[in-house]
Amino acid sequence: MPNARAVVDRLLGTFADATRGRDERRAVRLVKLLHTLVTERGESTGAVMARRAVALYNGLEESGRALLFDRLAREFSPDPDLVFAAASRYLEEPSPDTLAHLLRVSEPPRQEVFRRMNSAGGGTATLVGLRSRLLERLGAHPHLESVDADLTHLFGSWFNRGFLELRRIDWNTPASVLEKLITYEAVHEIRGFPDLKRRLERDRRCFAFFHPALPGEPLVFVEVAFVDQMPDAVTPILAMESVIGDPRRARCAVFYSITSCQPGLRGISCGNFLIKQVAEDLQAELPNLKQFVTLSPVPGLRAWLAERAARRPSLAPLLALLEAGAPLPGPGFDEMLSAVTAHYLTREWDQGQARDPVARFHLGNGARLERVNPRADPSAKGQRQSLGVMVNYGYALGHVERNHESYMRRHVVAASSAVERQAKEARTLLGEDPGPH
Amino acid sequence: MPNARAVVDRLLGTFADATRGRDERRAVRLVKLLHTLVTERGESTGAVMARRAVALYNGLEESGRALLFDRLAREFSPDPDLVFAAASRYLEEPSPDTLAHLLRVSEPPRQEVFRRMNSAGGGTATLVGLRSRLLERLGAHPHLESVDADLTHLFGSWFNRGFLELRRIDWNTPASVLEKLITYEAVHEIRGFPDLKRRLERDRRCFAFFHPALPGEPLVFVEVAFVDQMPDAVTPILAMESVIGDPRRARCAVFYSITSCQPGLRGISCGNFLIKQVAEDLQAELPNLKQFVTLSPVPGLRAWLAERAARRPSLAPLLALLEAGAPLPGPGFDEMLSAVTAHYLTREWDQGQARDPVARFHLGNGARLERVNPRADPSAKGQRQSLGVMVNYGYALGHVERNHESYMRRHVVAASSAVERQAKEARTLLGEDPGPH
Amino acid sequence: MPNARAVVDRLLGTFADATRGRDERRAVRLVKLLHTLVTERGESTGAVMARRAVALYNGLEESGRALLFDRLAREFSPDPDLVFAAASRYLEEPSPDTLAHLLRVSEPPRQEVFRRMNSAGGGTATLVGLRSRLLERLGAHPHLESVDADLTHLFGSWFNRGFLELRRIDWNTPASVLEKLITYEAVHEIRGFPDLKRRLERDRRCFAFFHPALPGEPLVFVEVAFVDQMPDAVTPILAMESVIGDPRRARCAVFYSITSCQPGLRGISCGNFLIKQVAEDLQAELPNLKQFVTLSPVPGLRAWLAERAARRPSLAPLLALLEAGAPLPGPGFDEMLSAVTAHYLTREWDQGQARDPVARFHLGNGARLERVNPRADPSAKGQRQSLGVMVNYGYALGHVERNHESYMRRHVVAASSAVERQAKEARTLLGEDPGPH
Amino acid sequence: MPNARAVVDRLLGTFADATRGRDERRAVRLVKLLHTLVTERGESTGAVMARRAVALYNGLEESGRALLFDRLAREFSPDPDLVFAAASRYLEEPSPDTLAHLLRVSEPPRQEVFRRMNSAGGGTATLVGLRSRLLERLGAHPHLESVDADLTHLFGSWFNRGFLELRRIDWNTPASVLEKLITYEAVHEIRGFPDLKRRLERDRRCFAFFHPALPGEPLVFVEVAFVDQMPDAVTPILAMESVIGDPRRARCAVFYSITSCQPGLRGISCGNFLIKQVAEDLQAELPNLKQFVTLSPVPGLRAWLAERAARRPSLAPLLALLEAGAPLPGPGFDEMLSAVTAHYLTREWDQGQARDPVARFHLGNGARLERVNPRADPSAKGQRQSLGVMVNYGYALGHVERNHESYMRRHVVAASSAVERQAKEARTLLGEDPGPH
Repeated sequence: MPNARAVVDRLLGTFADATRGRDERRAVRLVKLLHTLVTERGESTGAVMARRAVALYNGLEESGRALLFDRLAREFSPDPDLVFAAASRYLEEPSPDTLAHLLRVSEPPRQEVFRRMNSAGGGTATLVGLRSRLLERLGAHPHLESVDADLTHLFGSWFNRGFLELRRIDWNTPASVLEKLITYEAVHEIRGFPDLKRRLERDRRCFAFFHPALPGEPLVFVEVAFVDQMPDAVTPILAMESVIGDPRRARCAVFYSITSCQPGLRGISCGNFLIKQVAEDLQAELPNLKQFVTLSPVPGLRAWLAERAARRPSLAPLLALLEAGAPLPGPGFDEMLSAVTAHYLTREWDQGQARDPVARFHLGNGARLERVNPRADPSAKGQRQSLGVMVNYGYALGHVERNHESYMRRHVVAASSAVERQAKEARTLLGEDPGPH
Repeated sequence: MPNARAVVDRLLGTFADATRGRDERRAVRLVKLLHTLVTERGESTGAVMARRAVALYNGLEESGRALLFDRLAREFSPDPDLVFAAASRYLEEPSPDTLAHLLRVSEPPRQEVFRRMNSAGGGTATLVGLRSRLLERLGAHPHLESVDADLTHLFGSWFNRGFLELRRIDWNTPASVLEKLITYEAVHEIRGFPDLKRRLERDRRCFAFFHPALPGEPLVFVEVAFVDQMPDAVTPILAMESVIGDPRRARCAVFYSITSCQPGLRGISCGNFLIKQVAEDLQAELPNLKQFVTLSPVPGLRAWLAERAARRPSLAPLLALLEAGAPLPGPGFDEMLSAVTAHYLTREWDQGQARDPVARFHLGNGARLERVNPRADPSAKGQRQSLGVMVNYGYALGHVERNHESYMRRHVVAASSAVERQAKEARTLLGEDPGPH
Repeated sequence: MPNARAVVDRLLGTFADATRGRDERRAVRLVKLLHTLVTERGESTGAVMARRAVALYNGLEESGRALLFDRLAREFSPDPDLVFAAASRYLEEPSPDTLAHLLRVSEPPRQEVFRRMNSAGGGTATLVGLRSRLLERLGAHPHLESVDADLTHLFGSWFNRGFLELRRIDWNTPASVLEKLITYEAVHEIRGFPDLKRRLERDRRCFAFFHPALPGEPLVFVEVAFVDQMPDAVTPILAMESVIGDPRRARCAVFYSITSCQPGLRGISCGNFLIKQVAEDLQAELPNLKQFVTLSPVPGLRAWLAERAARRPSLAPLLALLEAGAPLPGPGFDEMLSAVTAHYLTREWDQGQARDPVARFHLGNGARLERVNPRADPSAKGQRQSLGVMVNYGYALGHVERNHESYMRRHVVAASSAVERQAKEARTLLGEDPGPH
Repeated sequence: MPNARAVVDRLLGTFADATRGRDERRAVRLVKLLHTLVTERGESTGAVMARRAVALYNGLEESGRALLFDRLAREFSPDPDLVFAAASRYLEEPSPDTLAHLLRVSEPPRQEVFRRMNSAGGGTATLVGLRSRLLERLGAHPHLESVDADLTHLFGSWFNRGFLELRRIDWNTPASVLEKLITYEAVHEIRGFPDLKRRLERDRRCFAFFHPALPGEPLVFVEVAFVDQMPDAVTPILAMESVIGDPRRARCAVFYSITSCQPGLRGISCGNFLIKQVAEDLQAELPNLKQFVTLSPVPGLRAWLAERAARRPSLAPLLALLEAGAPLPGPGFDEMLSAVTAHYLTREWDQGQARDPVARFHLGNGARLERVNPRADPSAKGQRQSLGVMVNYGYALGHVERNHESYMRRHVVAASSAVERQAKEARTLLGEDPGPH
């Protein structure tokens, strides 16, 4: 009975339309409210309106949000004519007055919209959630970028390091916070509370940044292990049943996982502050620690190598590796993989930055590439992205500035002599011109 | 021995020069650091540099600060040519890209300077202190206004209501905080801890806004008294030895003092939020409260009346009053004073706002002028500024929006019928045109 | 080679002896220290000695503890002659002086030993642990009972309700505390954090008593569920995937689990306070709650029935049940089981108390037996001990005193009319004399 | 009109009688309730009854309390016959059973009364207040001593050091707590908050013991000053306007005031624990501190000297001093006063203890008498009791045990060689037999 089917479909469609209709009408109401909120200068009822706006937003569904984002992009940008006039005046006479006027007209009214919404209870959480939804639509709707730019600008100011609180996470931390760590952990999956508990014993540490307006919500957290020497594999660190060591005898602190928790705060990075602050604090507490290193994946390695191998027969064994999906026991194999990785991390650039995203983060922070460890990460994800390779980036606080300078200005990666040597060895293999770098 | 004197003077001058020289060299070093801080894009050592900048600033004395403020005004403004070019492009094609570029070049680099400084420990407190010093110089050096504008912009964002914490202040509050209340109280002097203690008994309340980055620092606080009816004098409220009433039987909550504590946060007003939030909370806690009013001074009254009386002989008795410095017992005197005050508060405008600064605040918040109380404040300050008059502004939360609208859009002050009548009576006295208002 | 074996055995024995020897020497040292601790009147170095005693105790192993307990029993009791003399004097002249002297000599010096040990950091936890070890030995060594009596006396005083803190346990509670709940839960096993999380949702509640000297250590906790009506089975309450209800619409609060956490505090019951306090607080918070009941096992039911069935053929079906290990679907079966349970709980006494231990607790608290629910607990333990039966005890705060009186003085169990009827029906079945109870 | 007068007097008397009558009837009701509370074994409604008892007690006035105390003394003591019988049985057969029985019947039921009352909210505070009232009556009514003995016994157990919390008091402490310090300070009056503030600056410290059941109520507190060397006068320490020193450079920590705050806890001394704990903690925090001393009054000095001078003409100058009320500038005068004080503190005994109450406390704690400082305390109280003399007791933690032993067992006061010499010099002056001590 195709007819019955069609009827049902139509009914369902009508129902969906009705729902979407209601949702969009709600969004339209919200847009109207936001216009009022932002023109209303006296703020007499700003608190009430802001609360209403937050409640309306939180009631929206996908179609409503789509409409809202679109309107935010179209209706809350600065007026180009006014901006041009103000810029002209400022060009003629750059005074406090003309500058003030220019700033007033060129700031998108969206920013005031978001500041006002933020004033309501739960406003900050709502806006962080809003940006997270916005980012999901951004790829397909690039005209929403200016909305994102405004949120990014505000969040950069609001989540300034000076407003963040560094807190140690341990087994006395509320379960609701620990649960979030389990959920968010991006690098090495935490398999429930008992697994997490091992990561909080006295030879491990965990620290997170929190913001006062998002209580109980870690923004970014780092997991540290105290070990005897710079580690070349992650399995011993993650093993639940391992013996608990004495932090007062450890020589090396390993940052083995750094995770951002809030998709809505993407790019508002405080991870760099976190690592350095934690290194500084641990150094003061445990003078026995001589080395602060990461144990990091090389997530762009496989993709880059696949692309490169397509052009170079000499990379055959590595190609085979790619196909086999696991390190092969051929002689010299690990060396070959290490050399290629050293090259990839120190010589491959993309718009003035290291090509690998994790390398970009640590090298940009002023870390030094200490060692390449093949067969370090047996996990599926580790194989798939990094061919099982992990590397150590070293944070020697006294050298961070120099490393950073040389990376940023001269595009030279700070690396240990061993890594340097490996990178040079890779040239022939990769068919690179051995000319001066 | 004038020569000896001259020698000493010269020596002292040399010494002062040397000190100033050292202070200014320090400021120059700081300016240089700020330039680095802001161009340095990778932030690798941002934390260290920010700390250094904060420390350098806190070591400056007056001459160093003068130099710093001047350089901030001159060297950290946007480049007019770049702004003009960006505005032209945006005018031609208003896209996310052109808007982003415009915003980037028109934001004064000062803002980034301040954001970076804020990231250091104690950075926020340092910047609030910096602005307080800046405001002291502003009158004589108007070219510093753009520096102030940037701080105002940032503080407006950072001290957003959503980031403030409302806290009740009582006798269990740390003494260090209570001491600040005693120091800051601007309206009715608190004469030490025993006096303050009376203001924190159960028939009184005190609430303050705090910001997480300035722990222990009240931003603005309000003092409330629970009484039987709308009060016409402040003395009974301030009396230390008065009987302590039962808050569950009071009908009226009086906001008898609202004080901003941080000179560096001038204009970043959260007082309006504070009053309404407290009214809302008290209403929920004590349903017996039927009325929320202030007992406020009229600080512009005497100055305005002196100016006006110079032109109107009929104001002679009031003039006499001005000279006597205290209310005279002549018949009808209080009525005359009340009428003139009612006129002043409801009919005298200055650039679209009520002329009296306190009236401006409460009427702008949507309050209603309830009653004029002559002989309400016997203090020297009360006589000097307000001729002893105090008025009640009423906060009926349901009417705030309407009152505000009528005040902002139609320049009509919401007032009780009694006050309206008094304002009309004053016309003849003041020689005003009795035409339609 | 039996000889070799014997040699090894001898060596191992020597080794064990050596260990035991060291342990016992340690205990002897501790006993000596305790003698000093208690005769030393000035307390000048009491703190240091107490710390040493606690450390020594915590280093003891089984043999050392055995020696210590024995010595505590033998060497720290009152001197019978002194006691007799003091009692005689008090008999002759009962004055404050003679009473004071009597009390001084009849108090076992052990109590002072324990009070002194308690003064060290962690002393309370050590003593609670000590008693837990002592209780393990008590059965086989009845002469240790006076040591236990002294600890019981002190703990009764120290863990007085006035010193306990009632705290709500929820998902924001530290994981270390929640882990203890999972470990200790005696009634209905908690299968990890996700299971516990369901028990802390908004239609569930959990409360515990804490003592300030044992931070992070729950003493006793109760789990509550909000439901529509008095429940007749525990499975729906324990189901992890159940829909989360609205506490503002529930009519009945069910105490479905009460667990004491500290073996060393056995008999220092605060569970009765806990239930009544929680009932009182919940009643104040949620006026919609009309009924406060437990859902409790009948852990003595099977043992009692087995004993009784051995003597009565009419109990054959129930006997069969005992053998089958699960309720049989025979007609009238549930009725028979319910009647017998009603009889057991209301008519079977043991030394003036209800025979069933759980009944003893709740009836002693003044609760009323509301309903018998067969097939209420399908768990292995529930079947093994309670034949799957659970009962509701009702806490109507206004009737607690009367119920308690009637239970304590007249040995009459407060029960609903339905339960009373069932108990009467059981007489024939059990061959009881239907005479007046 | 004497008649009218008599009538009024009679009326007033009747009124007072009526009030007393009501108060006493209330007390009788309470006594009856306490009897129930204590016989009621099941505790079913213990919480409710305890609350009622506490409320009744707190409503009593003087006459009611008098009646209550009297009844507590008479009706809640152990039964002498039962005690005698139990003691006889224990004499015959000292077993756990007979001991348990003896303890049960010899413990005054008063103790259970107090334990039950303690279980109510605010119970502990009520009992501490009750004892304070009891102590006021004790002198005139010695038969109340057994009531006091029971409270002392319980408080000794409840306020065990293991349950106390050491807290630092500083300017961030709640004003309500600081106010109590101002009120309670017994040694050197604190003249309001500004005076107290100076005592909490960084070159001063203040610590107090708190009990969890009396939140916000300091039990005993100690005030410490960090100085360069052992001080010989208190004025520089108390001076409000003095320069604030650097605690990291001080060599000497002076305990210049130790004050018990709760009259109801008299004799439940934790002051000794406090001093030693604070000394230990400060030593760990500030290794630069080399000496821990008190600066203490000698409150029994004048009374003892007056008594002695009556019998010895050679004490004439000192007698004159007594009459003049201030140190006289005669040659050798200070030496004479110091010698006599050294004698008084090291040679004058009373029932095996030092005669001076403050000496008794510190010497009993194991301190050493370091130095006698004449003209050290110019205050009226200092002159009146101590003739202006203050002494330093030294707490060298390593010697405390030995000093204590020698003081307790051999009645030898640990003193510096200077003090020893002074004490010997005093013999002639005092006409003491210079025989062996």
